Amino acid sequence: MTHKQDKTRVTVEIRNRSYNIVGDEDASHVKLVASLVDQKMREIHEMNPSLDTASLAVLTAINTMNDYLLLKEDYATLIGSIKKKEDN
Amino acid sequence: MTHKQDKTRVTVEIRNRSYNIVGDEDASHVKLVASLVDQKMREIHEMNPSLDTASLAVLTAINTMNDYLLLKEDYATLIGSIKKKEDN
Repeated sequence: MTHKQDKTRVTVEIRNRSYNIVGDEDASHVKLVASLVDQKMREIHEMNPSLDTASLAVLTAINTMNDYLLLKEDYATLIGSIKKKEDN
Repeated sequence: MTHKQDKTRVTVEIRNRSYNIVGDEDASHVKLVASLVDQKMREIHEMNPSLDTASLAVLTAINTMNDYLLLKEDYATLIGSIKKKEDN
């Protein structure tokens, strides 16, 4: 191997613009992630047709971060209940 | 109560622009979410100083969506292992 790191390079299209994503995940995963972001942006756009792309993208990021935090809380609660069971 | 729904309305600042967020979460939660998005955008900006706000926000959304999916997999694995234990 001549490369120290084998990063994946994937081009995805979101709202008719191309983005080059470099990362450790495989290409199909990156494309799935991008399609979910594109879908969420379309939903938010349908509810707020007057928003420009930057605002739309920021609101999409906020929305996704909110989902992430709520899931993180659920995850922590689940871990907590497992520990409680183990202690009994 | 005269309102059918009591939605929270919060103004947050992300990269020097204000956004009005309407939702069911309380104001402090919305502000936490916004500060995490702002922080992630700043990190991505530092790695890619030439990106405009829209691209920066899209990449932030992609990044967060990726974290969300990975956590969702962890969550499903954990649920799976709990069920397996209960079956034994």
